Amino acid sequence: MSTRYPTPDIHDLPDDIKAKVLEVQEKAGFVPNVFLALARRPAEWRAFFAYHDALMVPESVGRESGLSKGDREMIVTTTSAANHCLYCVVAHGAILRIYEKKPLVADQVAVNYRKADISPRQRAMLDFAMKVCLHSDEVEDADFAALHAHGFNDEDIWDIAAITAFFGLSNRMASFSGMMPNPEFYLMGRTPKVKA
Amino acid sequence: MSTRYPTPDIHDLPDDIKAKVLEVQEKAGFVPNVFLALARRPAEWRAFFAYHDALMVPESVGRESGLSKGDREMIVTTTSAANHCLYCVVAHGAILRIYEKKPLVADQVAVNYRKADISPRQRAMLDFAMKVCLHSDEVEDADFAALHAHGFNDEDIWDIAAITAFFGLSNRMASFSGMMPNPEFYLMGRTPKVKA
Amino acid sequence: MSTRYPTPDIHDLPDDIKAKVLEVQEKAGFVPNVFLALARRPAEWRAFFAYHDALMVPESVGRESGLSKGDREMIVTTTSAANHCLYCVVAHGAILRIYEKKPLVADQVAVNYRKADISPRQRAMLDFAMKVCLHSDEVEDADFAALHAHGFNDEDIWDIAAITAFFGLSNRMASFSGMMPNPEFYLMGRTPKVKA
Amino acid sequence: MSTRYPTPDIHDLPDDIKAKVLEVQEKAGFVPNVFLALARRPAEWRAFFAYHDALMVPESVGRESGLSKGDREMIVTTTSAANHCLYCVVAHGAILRIYEKKPLVADQVAVNYRKADISPRQRAMLDFAMKVCLHSDEVEDADFAALHAHGFNDEDIWDIAAITAFFGLSNRMASFSGMMPNPEFYLMGRTPKVKA
Amino acid sequence: MSTRYPTPDIHDLPDDIKAKVLEVQEKAGFVPNVFLALARRPAEWRAFFAYHDALMVPESVGRESGLSKGDREMIVTTTSAANHCLYCVVAHGAILRIYEKKPLVADQVAVNYRKADISPRQRAMLDFAMKVCLHSDEVEDADFAALHAHGFNDEDIWDIAAITAFFGLSNRMASFSGMMPNPEFYLMGRTPKVKA
Amino acid sequence: MSTRYPTPDIHDLPDDIKAKVLEVQEKAGFVPNVFLALARRPAEWRAFFAYHDALMVPESVGRESGLSKGDREMIVTTTSAANHCLYCVVAHGAILRIYEKKPLVADQVAVNYRKADISPRQRAMLDFAMKVCLHSDEVEDADFAALHAHGFNDEDIWDIAAITAFFGLSNRMASFSGMMPNPEFYLMGRTPKVKA
Repeated sequence: MSTRYPTPDIHDLPDDIKAKVLEVQEKAGFVPNVFLALARRPAEWRAFFAYHDALMVPESVGRESGLSKGDREMIVTTTSAANHCLYCVVAHGAILRIYEKKPLVADQVAVNYRKADISPRQRAMLDFAMKVCLHSDEVEDADFAALHAHGFNDEDIWDIAAITAFFGLSNRMASFSGMMPNPEFYLMGRTPKVKA
Repeated sequence: MSTRYPTPDIHDLPDDIKAKVLEVQEKAGFVPNVFLALARRPAEWRAFFAYHDALMVPESVGRESGLSKGDREMIVTTTSAANHCLYCVVAHGAILRIYEKKPLVADQVAVNYRKADISPRQRAMLDFAMKVCLHSDEVEDADFAALHAHGFNDEDIWDIAAITAFFGLSNRMASFSGMMPNPEFYLMGRTPKVKA
Repeated sequence: MSTRYPTPDIHDLPDDIKAKVLEVQEKAGFVPNVFLALARRPAEWRAFFAYHDALMVPESVGRESGLSKGDREMIVTTTSAANHCLYCVVAHGAILRIYEKKPLVADQVAVNYRKADISPRQRAMLDFAMKVCLHSDEVEDADFAALHAHGFNDEDIWDIAAITAFFGLSNRMASFSGMMPNPEFYLMGRTPKVKA
Repeated sequence: MSTRYPTPDIHDLPDDIKAKVLEVQEKAGFVPNVFLALARRPAEWRAFFAYHDALMVPESVGRESGLSKGDREMIVTTTSAANHCLYCVVAHGAILRIYEKKPLVADQVAVNYRKADISPRQRAMLDFAMKVCLHSDEVEDADFAALHAHGFNDEDIWDIAAITAFFGLSNRMASFSGMMPNPEFYLMGRTPKVKA
Repeated sequence: MSTRYPTPDIHDLPDDIKAKVLEVQEKAGFVPNVFLALARRPAEWRAFFAYHDALMVPESVGRESGLSKGDREMIVTTTSAANHCLYCVVAHGAILRIYEKKPLVADQVAVNYRKADISPRQRAMLDFAMKVCLHSDEVEDADFAALHAHGFNDEDIWDIAAITAFFGLSNRMASFSGMMPNPEFYLMGRTPKVKA
Repeated sequence: MSTRYPTPDIHDLPDDIKAKVLEVQEKAGFVPNVFLALARRPAEWRAFFAYHDALMVPESVGRESGLSKGDREMIVTTTSAANHCLYCVVAHGAILRIYEKKPLVADQVAVNYRKADISPRQRAMLDFAMKVCLHSDEVEDADFAALHAHGFNDEDIWDIAAITAFFGLSNRMASFSGMMPNPEFYLMGRTPKVKA
């Protein structure tokens, strides 16, 4: 299995995209494939990462969120597994392990989040994320009430739903285009010594 | 059923968003609810509409597409119906009727695209869009071959998939947040006299 | 898409069927396609419309019903959408708009009845109709209790179930045979000026 | 589990219904429960049995069918099992055994028609019936071609679809109302000595 | 439909297997096909029947069970029907009729266990068995609580789950290999005179 | 999430089971939880591991198999993921990595085997395993033909089906009982230095 679309060379990218890609490479030690795979369409790339950052790095848009970094990656990993998206499960599972400092949690939520070693609050969060992922038309006021009972407010619920919705887009793009996760992701965060 | 989140007043919006909203209002005669409903989070609003325009108005990003305006709206209406998203079926169904100059086609693809009065090329396009919508993990090389046989190239296929993926995001946001379509959409494009 | 079976000429129909067809034409201004499409088998036609009238025009068989005309058409439109039957969604959606005097309600229940502007009593009615439509084997006493709580009695429940069951038959006949809705239906009841 | 609606006394039935019920009792040795359960609404009873006879006893309406009596009951038993309708599987399974003179075939098609001891022509017939039963919106021209290849003509295909559709109605009525099969049906046709 | 694998001759079997097969033949009057069909692989045969006996004949391993013989066969028949396994529904349905002394119960649970003439305790048992059969990943503590409320203890729950799981294996082996039930099973236990 | 049943102490186990457990501990460096979790019922334990070894260690029963050790573990990991069984995906994914000497393959087949870096022959093997896992009633002769085309003979097909069926049992036992994978499994085989 290899990608169905040619990947652009980093040197051919527009300057703003190249700069962001080099910044990521500097930080992570490698360029996650999604950065290059989507760059063949610069306008879509810019919108994708602007949306990504608005949801996943809320402080970058001057917003605080009731979800922790680990919560957000847990939503991504769990719903991406429901969509059978190899790229997102592996890449975001890696980041989830690091943020939660739990080497086992990503595999747990990917296979069956009901058996994962997570808090009841996170379980409620994932129940809602899975409903938005799989049956968004059936969301009811009772779903909001269940989240309120765990201390989530309506902005937190928007975050859960929007992260799920955004990565539903990402999952479909990765799966249809044959995007493969970088080998580096598979091992990240699995031992105390392995860092992002 | 009413929206679950307060809608911002147009006068409280950031200038760039207000300008775009007023431009749409000028053109359409009303402000489609999605423009206000998402504006409560400006950064997400900007990313959403940048992504939207990159896919749905490709000339705005200096790109040509093998899909017609009508093709694109047909993908949105059909896959939004599969996701049971009231807002997108009604709003984009209206635009589809206008672009295709077919007053009946939106209801047809929304209920059962297999019975719609569309071309075999459009039927193949929708078969693929529905696979990306519902079973993106099962996309195979044979799906690409089937589209090539109808004259679609790989950029067209990217367009079909990306439009489907983006509106999958939109569908989930609209459904979870209780976004309702403006009454104006229901009647648009249904008679020769009714225009957008 | 056109019908898979030849449609009989109105002048070749048996007298009783011809009389009924002409009566409908007189009243509606056109002959709904189902009247001609099924007439190629007169015995089945007679049984179909006898059954239809016993459920949908209860006063024609000397019976009163706790369901209003609008309730009945709402059941038909909603469950026909679940069965993806183009003919019934379009034709009965038109009648629903007229009876309920709500130009938007048919599109709402067809796409997602959970988001429709209907009463809690109608919502409960549709929840039950959808269960009979999709999972009739799972109907339990608790479903009856939920309807009783909204004021439906056991005869009303029979009506909901029987209308759902009858149009499940109708949906399958229309879909398999390629029956297409008359263009007139699409616009009926959408404006104050458009009448049945 | 008992029926959810009171069953009328045979002596209280309208004369035409009573006559038919007594005729069936005379022939079968008992009154199948469906005859009494539906009789609480005479108009619906008359339409139901008129429809039933038009499809299942085509000679009663002056029509010949390319389907044998056994073929018809096989469609009913198989699709009623897919709908999990206890009454119809047991009652029509009994008649199927008798018509096909195969004591085992009803249980076979009810559990898994793909393993049943039936002809390839019957297998194609059931494949189509199951598609009409479960996914009627997906019926395509290719389904007609597959049946033509086994010698079915378009009238036979109408018969297969209409029988499936009619018993889909019957299945839903029986399941929702708690109609139970008469004990007599369970054993009928299972041995050479046991007759209808 | 016939078996996809050659059936070994009883005289070619290893002595321990031959002895068990002859013992069954002596008791039942015939050799159930599963005994010969699996015997082509003696090691798997021995493990299969050791597992079978540990669950279905607990006294053979010095264990008592809170489930009756009839309870156990009811679980097998119901879940095997959900898996559409012809062999197990017919063979174990026969034994169920005999143990429960209810000639009708096997057909009832196979078609729709919700309509079967069984106790509320058995209904709860089957609800759990069906969840283990179809959605084992969703089993929750609440499912255990529901069974405790009907008097089942944790060992009984293990029995329900393990019997379901074991026959899920058996169902898949029978279906993939084309194993057919012996004709004798179809009639067993249907009348007071027919014995195992 | 912790196991729902008490785990026996290794010193309380019957001698034959204790010996086997100690042997595994010696070889692997730890006792995989399944060995203790099932040991609370010795007769079931013995049957389970006898079945396991007959399928997964065919040379232990004097049989050769056309499937490699890696093929067998790939079937287990893929179908266990379809059943959302945390224990089996993690434990057998580890062994799969080791046997195939591919640190990435287990995560790939668990999330979406269609995207995994495997041979076309293995892809065909997994297509069949997934059909046996999810729709065993639909297995057809054409499925056998597809496997023959990749060089599998009927004994290999039996192996694929039986391994799938056996681990379907294992998956259900692990999920219902809350069996958790040992932490050691998560990291095994992920780097050249990590061994089983």
